[in-house]
Amino acid sequence: MDMVIPLFDRFEPLDAIGPYEILAYLPGATVRFVTARPGLVQDVLGSLPVHVATGYADVERCDVLLIPGGGSFQTMMDDADFLDWVRRIHAGTRFTTSVCTGSLVLGAAGLLNGLTATTHWDAAAQLESFGACYTAERVVRQGRVITSAGVSSGIDMALHLAALLTDELTAQAIQLYTEYDPQPPYETGSVAKAPAEVLDRARTLGA
Amino acid sequence: MDMVIPLFDRFEPLDAIGPYEILAYLPGATVRFVTARPGLVQDVLGSLPVHVATGYADVERCDVLLIPGGGSFQTMMDDADFLDWVRRIHAGTRFTTSVCTGSLVLGAAGLLNGLTATTHWDAAAQLESFGACYTAERVVRQGRVITSAGVSSGIDMALHLAALLTDELTAQAIQLYTEYDPQPPYETGSVAKAPAEVLDRARTLGA
Repeated sequence: MDMVIPLFDRFEPLDAIGPYEILAYLPGATVRFVTARPGLVQDVLGSLPVHVATGYADVERCDVLLIPGGGSFQTMMDDADFLDWVRRIHAGTRFTTSVCTGSLVLGAAGLLNGLTATTHWDAAAQLESFGACYTAERVVRQGRVITSAGVSSGIDMALHLAALLTDELTAQAIQLYTEYDPQPPYETGSVAKAPAEVLDRARTLGA
Repeated sequence: MDMVIPLFDRFEPLDAIGPYEILAYLPGATVRFVTARPGLVQDVLGSLPVHVATGYADVERCDVLLIPGGGSFQTMMDDADFLDWVRRIHAGTRFTTSVCTGSLVLGAAGLLNGLTATTHWDAAAQLESFGACYTAERVVRQGRVITSAGVSSGIDMALHLAALLTDELTAQAIQLYTEYDPQPPYETGSVAKAPAEVLDRARTLGA
């Protein structure tokens, strides 16, 4: 089972690494990171240069494509060759997926037109500009396209995906192994729950 | 605010990257990864080589030390120079913290003797061999030592830590920005909740 995660400069670390942590434990799974020009790829927070050995152009098919978000989504969307590649790969995947603003890349590739989808809460309008119908749900499956909400939601998405690719027992065991029994300290993890002052402050973080 | 996360070969990706994603958004925070010999450090899942530019020996003090777990804990514990460094750094931190089996490193350095602490559920006996009292709680604070449970618990720990280092509004805003409103698909994220067959399967994953 071949899974591919494109990493471009300014990727959001948890968008990519949360699902990677889950999916790499699937029996027989191989997760490959790919990029435009192989070498060091820097994350948006600035301290995590990852060496990515494979160019996306060298991948011709995979079972799962997962597009993370972060500051990299604009670079991906501006790269016509990359969007062509996304469309071509999507034709052969079992599941084409995104975390956070990675869904904007799927949108720019024309893959979300007419679909219900999700993204980071601050990117909803942009998602709808690609003909998608935004919903604030955390994980949204439409056939073999699965989008998830901001940053940390990729963990939930990956566990759903793990069950779809194998079985529930395997997904449950990975959830236990990664001790994913979350106890967030606050009830401010979604726009629906957070007070206005928390939302105002949160908007400054991505600026 | 200077935060340091040691990464050694076979580190568990989410142990390190979950807290990094949270802590790097703190105003004025710098997160540095450090290692034994600067260069590429490979994770335990095998697809995420990170370029770490700083040797731990070049760091003389920091505000927060965070030790992740994974297959790297044994290497860290066997490195007497590293354990000396951990003790020396701990003397000057505001908080000394661990995720997953990173707590075994704190234990080996003698920092958990007589303290209540947590770790990955499968490492409880080993933690107690260092004189700590294991508890299955997700985040355990004892003064300026904070340990957290397996893999994904580092996100919860980092949000608690964010509030301790700044204020609750800032921590709440980071929780919203990272859309940390978890909706795990199963109730199997802890040993207390998981059925026996899930526990048996989970034990095979780390083997």
